[in-house]
Amino acid sequence: MLSKSQIKLITSLKQKKYRQQHGFFVVEGVKTIKELLQSDLELYKLYTTETFNIDAKNEVVISNSDLKRISFLVTPNTALAIFKIPNKKSIDTSGLIVALDDVRDPGNLGTIIRLCDWFGVKELVCSKKTVDCYNPKVIQATMGSITRVNITYVDLMLFLEESKTPVFGAFMEGKNVYNKTMPKQSVLVMGNEANGISKDVEAVITEKIAIPRFGDLQATESLNVASATAILLSEFKR
Amino acid sequence: MLSKSQIKLITSLKQKKYRQQHGFFVVEGVKTIKELLQSDLELYKLYTTETFNIDAKNEVVISNSDLKRISFLVTPNTALAIFKIPNKKSIDTSGLIVALDDVRDPGNLGTIIRLCDWFGVKELVCSKKTVDCYNPKVIQATMGSITRVNITYVDLMLFLEESKTPVFGAFMEGKNVYNKTMPKQSVLVMGNEANGISKDVEAVITEKIAIPRFGDLQATESLNVASATAILLSEFKR
Repeated sequence: MLSKSQIKLITSLKQKKYRQQHGFFVVEGVKTIKELLQSDLELYKLYTTETFNIDAKNEVVISNSDLKRISFLVTPNTALAIFKIPNKKSIDTSGLIVALDDVRDPGNLGTIIRLCDWFGVKELVCSKKTVDCYNPKVIQATMGSITRVNITYVDLMLFLEESKTPVFGAFMEGKNVYNKTMPKQSVLVMGNEANGISKDVEAVITEKIAIPRFGDLQATESLNVASATAILLSEFKR
Repeated sequence: MLSKSQIKLITSLKQKKYRQQHGFFVVEGVKTIKELLQSDLELYKLYTTETFNIDAKNEVVISNSDLKRISFLVTPNTALAIFKIPNKKSIDTSGLIVALDDVRDPGNLGTIIRLCDWFGVKELVCSKKTVDCYNPKVIQATMGSITRVNITYVDLMLFLEESKTPVFGAFMEGKNVYNKTMPKQSVLVMGNEANGISKDVEAVITEKIAIPRFGDLQATESLNVASATAILLSEFKR
């Protein structure tokens, strides 16, 4: 049985302010939970309908109806875990860094984290207005990649201003990325879904790049920011 | 005021079987509706809270509360349109064709349609079990691209068996795509989110390709199918 205060704590973690206040975030789904259990992340509580038999004093076996009460999903999985939000790590500027200027869609951020992991990008730097990486929908979309990418929220313009490596930005009117050679040590900035890169951040970009459009009509407005990140990371790493 | 039968018709279009029965699909959002109005698609009815002043006898100005009753969105836009599902067109095999083997997520299909449009791929061929392209969530994700890509549902194995051009398939264990030259006339097959390309379809693939993984851990399981499609289309077209 779950107590009222436990239910209250868990459901509060849907909101960023309570995640920050308590220092916890929620993960659902056996596969992702198992992956996170093997990482450096610290488990706070595991609520599950079928025991994991892990070496965890914090495992609580609950009923399906209890899981339904705490789950953020329409169709709950069989387990929900609460992990501690890890302490901030310093940003390692020795490799390629991806920087996001106000990416708002949780699915897009989750996909971008997964892409960073795939392409060996260790550092993801986000503007303060970028969606919180501990948002449950982001966690869902990362498929465990969140444990392998260091995500830091910063004043993006200040961070880029101090960068000692070239700062590339994705713009519709940038230079054809297929004709460029990318340095291994650099920053790639991707913009907001609707507005692209903001004026402030644009001012500190050293080179504007673009993915050429092949459709013969002018109508294709833009690529989704996660699709564009996929293509640009592939170009940086190929 | 909307009649009960109008409301019933519109809300039924959430389901594929009623879309097929009535031959209609729903589009929400002023921007996408305007884009579709400029295409070959035939408008059946436009329900809007602010008149479009289009040359449409089928424009119906409704209240916000009526829009709320018919909208499929949690936060309704200001307009909802019903378009006729266009007649099937034959598949033009003279260029690059993208083929999907049971892609189930509407957001992924929508993103892939948008990618086809961006990269000038005119033909998207889908297995029968691939999510319906007139699903409202697919339409939402395509941002109008659906009017510029010919989407056909087929028995995928039979279609590929009869293909006269090379059939590439995305596999984890395929050959490094960065070392390949892709013919302009070919088919690129992408698989299901969880299971990849099915055994039946695998049997008719002429060449298996893969996007190399750069992360140093084996843990990154796979790329999202839309991300992988983005990178592979970029490789075919660059």
